Amino acid sequence: MIFGNVPVRHLPSCRRLKWLQLESVGFEYYLPLADTPPSFSITNLKGLFEWPTAETALSGLLALGRGLPQLLTAQAQSQWVELEVRPQTWLLHGQRALVIGAGSIGNRLRLLLEAFGCQVHSFARSNPAADFHTIPELLNAIPKYDIVACCLPKTPETIGLVNREMLEAMSARALFVNIGRGAVVDEEALIGVLQRRRIRGAVIDVTQSEPLAPDHPLWRCPRTIITQHTGGGYDDELLDKARFFLRNLDLYRRGAELLNPIDVRKGY
Amino acid sequence: MIFGNVPVRHLPSCRRLKWLQLESVGFEYYLPLADTPPSFSITNLKGLFEWPTAETALSGLLALGRGLPQLLTAQAQSQWVELEVRPQTWLLHGQRALVIGAGSIGNRLRLLLEAFGCQVHSFARSNPAADFHTIPELLNAIPKYDIVACCLPKTPETIGLVNREMLEAMSARALFVNIGRGAVVDEEALIGVLQRRRIRGAVIDVTQSEPLAPDHPLWRCPRTIITQHTGGGYDDELLDKARFFLRNLDLYRRGAELLNPIDVRKGY
Repeated sequence: MIFGNVPVRHLPSCRRLKWLQLESVGFEYYLPLADTPPSFSITNLKGLFEWPTAETALSGLLALGRGLPQLLTAQAQSQWVELEVRPQTWLLHGQRALVIGAGSIGNRLRLLLEAFGCQVHSFARSNPAADFHTIPELLNAIPKYDIVACCLPKTPETIGLVNREMLEAMSARALFVNIGRGAVVDEEALIGVLQRRRIRGAVIDVTQSEPLAPDHPLWRCPRTIITQHTGGGYDDELLDKARFFLRNLDLYRRGAELLNPIDVRKGY
Repeated sequence: MIFGNVPVRHLPSCRRLKWLQLESVGFEYYLPLADTPPSFSITNLKGLFEWPTAETALSGLLALGRGLPQLLTAQAQSQWVELEVRPQTWLLHGQRALVIGAGSIGNRLRLLLEAFGCQVHSFARSNPAADFHTIPELLNAIPKYDIVACCLPKTPETIGLVNREMLEAMSARALFVNIGRGAVVDEEALIGVLQRRRIRGAVIDVTQSEPLAPDHPLWRCPRTIITQHTGGGYDDELLDKARFFLRNLDLYRRGAELLNPIDVRKGY
């Protein structure tokens, strides 16, 4: 067995491998295995990152609403800017939100937004509980929302799913959030709508290239908070990864079904 | 009638005044009226600021947990600091929180913290729903909490209520929040525990003097976010104040009981 995200190229030669426990939720690096379905089980850490990632999304949304970027800049200069900042604030409460993706992170985000009194709808192709299931439905719905949050994994079907047409269709009041994967979003189009202030702002945890190059235009887009793929982190992250592995190891030893099996053909 | 926070010294000479609708929740400026109870009604805006103020508290708590101050500083310099910041993050989820004050803001904060999976207790002298009612109970309880949030108004009884002994008794993991009034907290003692890193950090919306002087030590305390009394603000703030006044005016005209009457002798 392997616990950890080993390079995919080593796996075909691991003939006696029974089980690969990934230390991530995302497993786009292992999608090439789909061509010749592996003889071993693969499990991921689905659920382990739902709180930190949803909290990162909320921290960014609330920071933009409450003016934290301006307040923190002013604080570094010991400047009292109450009267400038206060009229520029807005509430998360009562916003209409669209969560794209209904995995554990999308569902957690949905519940938290509802606790703030947001009206939340969701998009997911195959989840019957979602409100929208097809790309035309999604495109049609997008202009109605104040928050559009992408929580999709990277799969052959999701690459570029949030395309230029959708980004351009968003409301001028809209905040765009990406806590899924950078590849899901047309980044050039996103930068365009942000730079032209076509939309209100963005909270971006994941980008197409990580780390972002120093001259990348996303760093300087207005009202954009880049959280640098820290969304899944928290103090007990390593401990909880080990705890999850030990729990699954116990099931493995008893010949029971493993938690969080993944299907590299489906990609989630 | 008067709609607005007129100087208190004018009021005793307003002999035909029937009703004063304040444009704030706090009315500590009007407490001197308690000496000779006024013949007119006074109403405040209780409830109008519960969402923005609770959102400001949450924005600060989440920003500290998710590392936003470091991430925003790095963003301004186009620096990728994922690996430095990620291990320093922590979750709001699962924290133990103590909310001091059970008015509309304290109650809203309590509900929001519960939505994040926090275990929340509250202190209020006279509210039977609170968990703690006396200062000795509060002092005894304080070391157990990861978050201590002050949501008290300024009254003769609350001035200095969060004293040096309480601040020194807080857990080393504790985040202190003040979205009530600056006068409730021993600010010198607060600065002491922050500077010595006796506690983890703070989110401070209100201070004893506002604006804070440029050389005030609070500006530079470690892991401290100063939100500069913007907590009550939001885009529709003025409109909602006017709407509330019109609603109360309608009641006034019909001779009905006014919403949000206040008692200057009790101070809340």
